[in-house]
Amino acid sequence: MDNQDYEALRDRLFELLDSRNLKELQLMLEDMNEFDISEFLTELDNTRMAIVFRLLSKTQGAEVFANLDVEDQEHIINSISDSELGSIIEELYVDDAVDMMEELPANVVKRVMRTATPQTRNLINQYLKYPENSAGSIMTAEFIDLKKYMNVRESIARIRRIGADKETIYICYVTSADRRLEGVVTVKDLILSEDEAVISDIMDTNVICVHTTDDQEEVSEMFSDYDLLAVPVVDKEGRLVGIVTVDDVIDVMEQEATEDFEKMAAILPSEKPYLKTSVLTFVKNRIPWLMVLMFSSTLSGIILGVFENVYVQVPLLVTLMPMLTGTGGNAGSQAATLIIRGMAVGEIETSDVLKILWKEVRVAAACGVILAVLNYIRIILMYPGEELVAMVTCVALFFTIILAKALGCTLPIFAKLCKLDPALMASPMISTLVDVVALIIYFSISARVFGIA
Amino acid sequence: MDNQDYEALRDRLFELLDSRNLKELQLMLEDMNEFDISEFLTELDNTRMAIVFRLLSKTQGAEVFANLDVEDQEHIINSISDSELGSIIEELYVDDAVDMMEELPANVVKRVMRTATPQTRNLINQYLKYPENSAGSIMTAEFIDLKKYMNVRESIARIRRIGADKETIYICYVTSADRRLEGVVTVKDLILSEDEAVISDIMDTNVICVHTTDDQEEVSEMFSDYDLLAVPVVDKEGRLVGIVTVDDVIDVMEQEATEDFEKMAAILPSEKPYLKTSVLTFVKNRIPWLMVLMFSSTLSGIILGVFENVYVQVPLLVTLMPMLTGTGGNAGSQAATLIIRGMAVGEIETSDVLKILWKEVRVAAACGVILAVLNYIRIILMYPGEELVAMVTCVALFFTIILAKALGCTLPIFAKLCKLDPALMASPMISTLVDVVALIIYFSISARVFGIA
Repeated sequence: MDNQDYEALRDRLFELLDSRNLKELQLMLEDMNEFDISEFLTELDNTRMAIVFRLLSKTQGAEVFANLDVEDQEHIINSISDSELGSIIEELYVDDAVDMMEELPANVVKRVMRTATPQTRNLINQYLKYPENSAGSIMTAEFIDLKKYMNVRESIARIRRIGADKETIYICYVTSADRRLEGVVTVKDLILSEDEAVISDIMDTNVICVHTTDDQEEVSEMFSDYDLLAVPVVDKEGRLVGIVTVDDVIDVMEQEATEDFEKMAAILPSEKPYLKTSVLTFVKNRIPWLMVLMFSSTLSGIILGVFENVYVQVPLLVTLMPMLTGTGGNAGSQAATLIIRGMAVGEIETSDVLKILWKEVRVAAACGVILAVLNYIRIILMYPGEELVAMVTCVALFFTIILAKALGCTLPIFAKLCKLDPALMASPMISTLVDVVALIIYFSISARVFGIA
Repeated sequence: MDNQDYEALRDRLFELLDSRNLKELQLMLEDMNEFDISEFLTELDNTRMAIVFRLLSKTQGAEVFANLDVEDQEHIINSISDSELGSIIEELYVDDAVDMMEELPANVVKRVMRTATPQTRNLINQYLKYPENSAGSIMTAEFIDLKKYMNVRESIARIRRIGADKETIYICYVTSADRRLEGVVTVKDLILSEDEAVISDIMDTNVICVHTTDDQEEVSEMFSDYDLLAVPVVDKEGRLVGIVTVDDVIDVMEQEATEDFEKMAAILPSEKPYLKTSVLTFVKNRIPWLMVLMFSSTLSGIILGVFENVYVQVPLLVTLMPMLTGTGGNAGSQAATLIIRGMAVGEIETSDVLKILWKEVRVAAACGVILAVLNYIRIILMYPGEELVAMVTCVALFFTIILAKALGCTLPIFAKLCKLDPALMASPMISTLVDVVALIIYFSISARVFGIA
């Protein structure tokens, strides 16, 4: 369905809602997919959201509910009865329930837990213990387990019996009596095999799996390397405790990339979309790095203070300063960005540092020569007779670019070696550091050339 | 399998290869997954790569081949016979074959095309016509089609018959006699239904689909919104021509994010991983924007030239300049990054511009006050007696932050309205523009306060 269809649908839904034709509305919702319904719900005020939500069937309701923001989830929880709430919680996949619990206010969490069955409650509690952003925190318990002595017919019968509310039925996990993971078998394998074939003969024992405490970023890298639909999660004892499915991994990938963009722009990552984030949260997320970088730039100020005599006597040097520091910063940020991204997607290892440095120095030398020559021409055209200043500036520009690229490519790797996030060494930090380096080079050369102490 | 297992495996593989125990090596390779085998191959020189590659079975060989870089693919193509090459091409999914054809040198493409069957050749030719980065260019033709009058038993029989070499069997597409898409049915639906149920009764007619010319970024957004495993691709006449599967979408997402990182760091996007990119390519990809930005910073230089009298008389203003332009640039880049990313993931629309501007101005005002006060204290501590310079700098800082955030959040939206890529208005461009604004504010206020014409 493309966007235009959805717009038309949405207008019709609003019409029905405004005319209180709830019967017709319910019929239309039944045919819609859960994502579009949740988009529609978020456009309504709280009262009308609750009215529409109650028109949904139990299964549809749970799926729509899982798609909503935590604020909207809270409104709905507050406007439905305990028994309605209880049935939603039972219908939710445990990973979605856990995501919600992590963000709901304590009193709402209490009510949710009270309405859940003891079994669900235990499961949620167990999941809440896994560290944030670990495989355990994004896995779900709704998978299909088979035994290796079953045959294909029995296995398909079991899938028919328990498959309806599993997050995926296409990959089945073969476990031993003590719940240890012994192999996987796909529904494709089952369908393409004879009815009497035994699971132990068709299962793949060479299982790619992750541990509950593995970072979600490692998990998502596995999906992109091995083209998986789901990956089993085992605990320390090798027992199968859950699976991570590809739809959750896509969300993780989007979230991790967004976090990297934020960190690389000197912003503390936020969980919510832009339009839902408050002014106060934005201030809190942006001010720390602005402050750190502001105070770091004091260093450039001190260097400028030292060379005050130079630029008071040759003021043209100040005029050319933004070009020098700006170009240096950009050259360094280019290198830093490529290295940070390369490490994030697993293409670059810290051991590649020398290879990278050698490559960057050559790139820098080529860029440096081209930019210095162009810049020399530009300066003597704009300021005739200032060949000496032009020469000094271009020599400084060349060395600044070399050092900027060298810093840009090594600092993120150095950060990783120090167990820091390489994304800290992105454009803002690199630009600030390159400023210092550029000014030292620029004014040291100038002082010597113009004979100013 | 975790990394340690792979390291041990790899050592054993090298041992067998060195001792020329190819029989044992072949047995081990049979049990390995295709990603690990291709990782192992890339570590070998060309001769040994060809030797190991020939040990693989036909199906395994094709999958490993699809995982290799185009250079390695070329080496293998050049070291195998026409008939071996032909059978690999037939085994490859058509999307993988097309990816490879787009990058291979012309003479190798010719040989590949010659060894393919006429049918495969036509298919590849047809796919090569879709625009780069369109749904058509990433789709595959290997899907399962059913007819709506079939029952479940017949459908499963058909899947058994033709399913072995399809890219997914889990979602089946119901088509009319003239190949128009009528509905989808999942293997889950089939397994959970009675044998005699008819497809037209269980299929979902409300199909989410894309067009061959849709951008791959839109396709990947659909997967993350609707949690899909595959999406059907239709041509202008509504005929089903292929499907895009989730594993390809994961690659697209990674590639699109990498491209955004590159563009936002003023680098022209490259197709290859960092370590495989040549120095020359890097220079070509980095120099254009460095040049544009270098010449743009001439504008800051001109402004500084205008105010030469001011800073020659009050040199402390120059000392504080990097702090002012740096903080302004960082503040603007923060806003720009959030907006660009928000638009890329579909959270922000151009129509939100006023809402965003109002939010950013408030964030900027709060950040501006905090930073100005801290900076005032810092300056009078470092330069006692310079209260007037401190005051001027902090007032300029406050207004610079407001304007930086206002520019940072509006320019990417403005770029999108002009059908330009919003990522152009990222950190480097914003910093360069903010420099100009900051210097005008700073020196205009200074000139007035210090009474310098």
